[in-house]
Amino acid sequence: MTFAEASEVRRTGAGTWMGRVAEGWDIAGNANGGYLLGIVARALTGETERPDPVSVTAHYLAPGKPGPVQVEAEVVRAGKRFSTARGLLVAEGRPVLAVLGSFADLTQLGGPAHVDGAPPTLPPVEQCVRAEPGDPMPPPFSGRVDLRMDPADAGFYEGRPSGRLRMGGWLRLPDDEPMDTLGLLLAADSFPPTIFNGTLPVAWTPTLELTVHVRRRPAPGWLRCVTTTRFVTNGFLEVDGEIWDASDQLVVQSRQLALVPRG
Amino acid sequence: MTFAEASEVRRTGAGTWMGRVAEGWDIAGNANGGYLLGIVARALTGETERPDPVSVTAHYLAPGKPGPVQVEAEVVRAGKRFSTARGLLVAEGRPVLAVLGSFADLTQLGGPAHVDGAPPTLPPVEQCVRAEPGDPMPPPFSGRVDLRMDPADAGFYEGRPSGRLRMGGWLRLPDDEPMDTLGLLLAADSFPPTIFNGTLPVAWTPTLELTVHVRRRPAPGWLRCVTTTRFVTNGFLEVDGEIWDASDQLVVQSRQLALVPRG
Repeated sequence: MTFAEASEVRRTGAGTWMGRVAEGWDIAGNANGGYLLGIVARALTGETERPDPVSVTAHYLAPGKPGPVQVEAEVVRAGKRFSTARGLLVAEGRPVLAVLGSFADLTQLGGPAHVDGAPPTLPPVEQCVRAEPGDPMPPPFSGRVDLRMDPADAGFYEGRPSGRLRMGGWLRLPDDEPMDTLGLLLAADSFPPTIFNGTLPVAWTPTLELTVHVRRRPAPGWLRCVTTTRFVTNGFLEVDGEIWDASDQLVVQSRQLALVPRG
Repeated sequence: MTFAEASEVRRTGAGTWMGRVAEGWDIAGNANGGYLLGIVARALTGETERPDPVSVTAHYLAPGKPGPVQVEAEVVRAGKRFSTARGLLVAEGRPVLAVLGSFADLTQLGGPAHVDGAPPTLPPVEQCVRAEPGDPMPPPFSGRVDLRMDPADAGFYEGRPSGRLRMGGWLRLPDDEPMDTLGLLLAADSFPPTIFNGTLPVAWTPTLELTVHVRRRPAPGWLRCVTTTRFVTNGFLEVDGEIWDASDQLVVQSRQLALVPRG
């Protein structure tokens, strides 16, 4: 099942969309946060009639379990170039995530450029580490993206965390599925938690909030991704992400705020 | 008028709060975005009965003008430690900003720490540049925060941009007003646009979206702030901010997505 199929939605009434959390998109039984955001954002692109998410924020309220879901969508403002909408993913009558986002047609924008940064330096794809689902790790979700981890960051799979709160690697959708700006929301939450490369006694960092900025539509081909964490403080950590496309363009900046449960 | 007074709200019904955009909190006639976010977040702390914003996102829909405003507030989920709510600031029947945020009592949290960063290095307060309102620059809003710019970043006031997309400096509220976590939302949007230190022909960068993570309550005293921009692409730029308190703790990470109007 492709990402496009797994995140399909259809309009069932004014501001109401139906979808389904598919089986096998989970980490330890809970659906991946980027996947859930993709379902809601797809409904909001429909509701706003704008094809691309530009800035979307999700607050995670409850675990997403396989089964039918509803998206309550509301356009707050429809502007000349941007439309802003809010969405609520509801499963069995309970809110699962709340989303606020602005949408546009990214091919219609442009302006002067100034870039102080570059794609992450990664070994060639074939020298990277493919994360395929195992028991209990990597989780079933790993099979839903074709992710090749930078070997420098992949030692944690064998109990050797790097000590550096970073996860980098190549990413594409399996089976030649084209990557679009909704797929980038999935990509933005596809890497293992940066904390797995740390030495703190933390096994689980639920996401409180995820914001994804999509700068442009990705060129075809492998994406280069990197996520880093600088501050683990007072029960929180941020995960900052960048995604670069095959034409060396920055396509995503993301940041999530995750929780560090007390031991 | 203090920030607390200027952002005061009172509940007028189920999920309805009244406030007022005060005079003199504007840049070229439009109220500062952090100030507007402060009004909405104050209503949401009331509606959720949680004192501190933890992660709040605002999408800016229309300029904020002085006058009475209404906040439509809705709690999406009330959890054990966090409550998530959405808010809409409405003026004369038109939406001005849409907010989604999670709230908690930040004094009740904690966990292991790992910090890869430090407060920005700034010259002593008395060697920094005080931005006081002028005509047309600095804007009236400058009088609402006591902001002392790092001289390395302040040359743009005299037509000498540094060429580095950064603004740093000290900040406190005037007249000994205590800084709290709502004031930090104001602080997160108080510095001049980073683009003013660039050489691109850009005079105006309206904010599309601002997300502020508040990690903890600030200690009394001056805050050290820094904002930077790395990527100006396809009509967008991000402004990343950090705010550190007088006890050397990171209190805020922020990021906004602003628009770069085409020449």
